[in-house]
Amino acid sequence: MSLNLTHEPARRSWIESANAAATGFPLQNLPYGVFLSGENHTPRIGVAIGDQILNLAALAELDLLPASARAAGRQPALNALMAAGPAVWTALRVRLSELLGVDSCPAALRTQVESCLVPQTGTTMLLPASIGGYTDFYASIFHATNVGKMLRPDQPLLPNYKWVPIGYHGRSSSIVASGTPVRRPCGQSKAADLSAPVFGPCKNLDYELELGAFVGPGNQQGTSIPLASAPGHLFGVVLLNDWSARDLQTWEYQPLGPFLAKNFATTISPWVVTLEALAPFRGPAFARPPGDPAPLPYLTDPADVAQGGLNLTLEVWLLTREMRAAGVGPHRLSSGNFSSMYWTLAQLLTHHASNGCNLQPGDLLGSGTVSGQAKDARGCLLEMTMRGTEPLSLPGGEERKFLADGDEVILRGHAERPGARRIGLGECRGVVLPAAT
Amino acid sequence: MSLNLTHEPARRSWIESANAAATGFPLQNLPYGVFLSGENHTPRIGVAIGDQILNLAALAELDLLPASARAAGRQPALNALMAAGPAVWTALRVRLSELLGVDSCPAALRTQVESCLVPQTGTTMLLPASIGGYTDFYASIFHATNVGKMLRPDQPLLPNYKWVPIGYHGRSSSIVASGTPVRRPCGQSKAADLSAPVFGPCKNLDYELELGAFVGPGNQQGTSIPLASAPGHLFGVVLLNDWSARDLQTWEYQPLGPFLAKNFATTISPWVVTLEALAPFRGPAFARPPGDPAPLPYLTDPADVAQGGLNLTLEVWLLTREMRAAGVGPHRLSSGNFSSMYWTLAQLLTHHASNGCNLQPGDLLGSGTVSGQAKDARGCLLEMTMRGTEPLSLPGGEERKFLADGDEVILRGHAERPGARRIGLGECRGVVLPAAT
Repeated sequence: MSLNLTHEPARRSWIESANAAATGFPLQNLPYGVFLSGENHTPRIGVAIGDQILNLAALAELDLLPASARAAGRQPALNALMAAGPAVWTALRVRLSELLGVDSCPAALRTQVESCLVPQTGTTMLLPASIGGYTDFYASIFHATNVGKMLRPDQPLLPNYKWVPIGYHGRSSSIVASGTPVRRPCGQSKAADLSAPVFGPCKNLDYELELGAFVGPGNQQGTSIPLASAPGHLFGVVLLNDWSARDLQTWEYQPLGPFLAKNFATTISPWVVTLEALAPFRGPAFARPPGDPAPLPYLTDPADVAQGGLNLTLEVWLLTREMRAAGVGPHRLSSGNFSSMYWTLAQLLTHHASNGCNLQPGDLLGSGTVSGQAKDARGCLLEMTMRGTEPLSLPGGEERKFLADGDEVILRGHAERPGARRIGLGECRGVVLPAAT
Repeated sequence: MSLNLTHEPARRSWIESANAAATGFPLQNLPYGVFLSGENHTPRIGVAIGDQILNLAALAELDLLPASARAAGRQPALNALMAAGPAVWTALRVRLSELLGVDSCPAALRTQVESCLVPQTGTTMLLPASIGGYTDFYASIFHATNVGKMLRPDQPLLPNYKWVPIGYHGRSSSIVASGTPVRRPCGQSKAADLSAPVFGPCKNLDYELELGAFVGPGNQQGTSIPLASAPGHLFGVVLLNDWSARDLQTWEYQPLGPFLAKNFATTISPWVVTLEALAPFRGPAFARPPGDPAPLPYLTDPADVAQGGLNLTLEVWLLTREMRAAGVGPHRLSSGNFSSMYWTLAQLLTHHASNGCNLQPGDLLGSGTVSGQAKDARGCLLEMTMRGTEPLSLPGGEERKFLADGDEVILRGHAERPGARRIGLGECRGVVLPAAT
C-alpha cells in the first residue's frame, strides 16, 4: 500500500463509527494522542479512529507495528515518534491504514487488532508530548493589523511585519490538556486615568484561537533548517488556546513582550493530526497584496508557496454558565481559515532555526491568533469586541466584553474539500475558574 | 554542627587548596555541579572544594550522605536536589562541611571521603540541571535606562519599570555549559538608510553579564508564591552570559520582544553557589531614589528589603585571538555589583508566580544585564560603547565596538566582606566562532 492510498476517500474502516460522514476521525485521519484508560494506568499512545482508540503499545506487543516504529509506539509520549522522522511516520501510517481498512485487513488479523481497541468514552487524554520549548508566533496579518490599530492607529502594522515572522518564547510548563480548568490569573494592571497600577484578578480575560505545530526531528545548535527541508521537521498540528490577560498585557508588555499575561495557561487539543493526513488540504496560497515585499530568499520556496497554506476551518465556540444551566449547547463566536495566514508553518520553523537555535522533537510552535479579514473570522475577543467597546450579544441575552468565570471556550477545527474525506482536529476545551482569593 | 557554623571563617578544610586565600571554593562555599571524569562516563553531582571535586554519588555509595539527600545525590543532574527544599539543602551542607572540615572529620572517615575526591583538572563540567523553563528579567535600572536612552532619548525608562519586574521567556534548549564555543548567528537586520532588510551574519554581537538563579521546589499551576516564602524556592546562582545579536534585536523585537537575537545561545557557569553559602553577603539594600514608588504589597517584604540584594562583584573579561597569540591574559572590561539591582531575586520569583504560572525545580531565572551607575560597571558592549559609537581600546591596541570572531568572553564573580571567607562563583567562558557559511 502507498502513502497516497491512505488518503483515498473511498476506503472504509471495519470500525463503523469511522465511516460516518460527520466523524472527524475517519480512516484517512489517524491522529496520535496519549491516553489513560480505566484498565491501564500507564500513559499510552493511541490513534483515534471513529469513536475508538487504537492502543499502539498493545499493537507493538502483538508485533503488528513496523519494526522502525515499535520502540516509539511503546513510549508514554509522542516525542520518540516525532523524533523518528518522515520515513517512520509514513511506514506507520501505511500500516495503520492497512490494519484498520475493511479491504486490507484479513479477518484473523482484525481479531488481533480489535483486542487493541479502547472506546474513547471513559479514557482520559493527556498532553501528547513532553514539550521542551514552546514558541508563539504572530502570523496572521489580520490579527496583527486589528491589534495594531488599537495601539497605534496611525501605524497599525510595524515595519518589520512583512519581513520577519514575528514570534516569542512562551511558557511550556503551563501548557495543559484540553478539559483542564483554567484559573483566572491575578496581576498588575493600570487604568489609563490612574497614576499607579493595582494588583488583582484579571478583568479582561481572553482566548486566542491558534494552531499549534509539533516539531519532529530537531537541528543541532548552530545549524539551520532550509525551507525545502522544513516539512520533514514538522510532525502534526493541534488546536491551541493562548489564554490572554489583556489588562495585564497592556501594562507589562513594553519593552520585552508578553509575559505574565500569557504564561498562566495554554490549552491544546489532545489529537495530533499529522501533516501527512492534511497533505490533501493545502492551499490556496495566501496572496500577498500587491506592493508587499517578497520574502527574503531563506523564506522563499516555490514549492511551499505553490502548495499554499493549510486549508483548515477553525472555530471558536462559547458555553457560558447560564447556557449550561439552561441546557443550551455552545454558541459559535467565530470561524476562520488557516490559509489566511501570512506565513506558512514551514516558514515559521525555518525562521526559528535560521540563527542556529536548536529545535527539539516535541517542541510546540503556536501560529498566533488565526484571524481573517471578516469580522466573524476574528480569533479573540479583543478583536471581536474592539477591546470591549462593542460587546458581543449571546443568544440567551447575555453580553460579553471578555470572558466571565464559568465560561467554557471550545475550539474546533476541520479540513474538508470535494473529493477527500473530512479530517477533524477534535476539540480544545477549557472552563474559566474564579481567581484565587 | 549548625548551619551558621558552615559560614565560620576560621574553619579550615583538610584539603589544603581549599584554604588558600585566593580560592573561590573554600569550605564555606560548597557549590554543586555536574561533572564527567575520565574514569566515569556517567554524569555525577560533585561539590567543588579547593581544586578538587567531591563526588556525591560516591559518598552516597559509602552511606555518608544524610538519608534525606541520598537519592538526590545519586542523580545525574541537580533537579532532584533542587526539588528537595531547604531542610534537605541545610542537612547536606552541614554534613559536607563536617566531612571536609579539618576539625570535624576523624582520620578514618577522612580516608573514606578522600576516596570520593576527583581533581578538577581533567574533568568536564556539564550543565548542572535539566532546565525546563528559562526566564530572563531586566532588573537593573541602570541597564534599562542606558538602553532606553538609545531607543527613546525623551523617555528612557518606560512607565511600568518601577512597578513591574519586567521579564520574558528565553530559550532553554540553547543554554550551554561554560567552555562551549558559540557560533555567530545569522539573521535579518535592516540598516537605517535602507528600505529592506538583509539576511546574513550578525554584525553587532554582544554579551550580557547576568546572574542566573535556579528554582528549587516549584508551585502548583494556579497558585502563587508569597514573597516571604520565596527564599525556600531559590536554590542557588550561576554566572550567565546572555549572548545578544544587537542588529537582529533592533529589527525584530517590536512588538513581542527579543527572539532570534537571543535564543541562539546562553552560557552559564558550572558551579551553582547556593543561597545558603551567600547568606552572609546580603546588602546593602538598593536604595530607591527619592520619589520612586514603593513596590506593590505582593512585592513588599520588610525582611527581604532590610537584608538587601546580594553583594556580589561581577566582572567581564575579554581574551581576543590576538591576545591569545601574543600570550597575553584576558583584559577586564567591567566590574559591577549585584546589589545595585532594582529588584531582588525573591521579588523576581514571586512576581513570576503571581499569576499562577507554575515554576519547576531546575528552572532558571536570569537577572538581566547587571549594570551599575559607573561607566566601568556596564554589563554589555551596547552600553559600554554606546551602540558602537565609542569603541573600546584594548591594551594591545585593538578596538572593539562589538565582539569579533575568536573573542572569548569570561564572566567572573565573587562575594567578599571583612569577617567572612571569600566565596567564588567560578567562571563562565565562551569563544565566538565565525558564522556558518
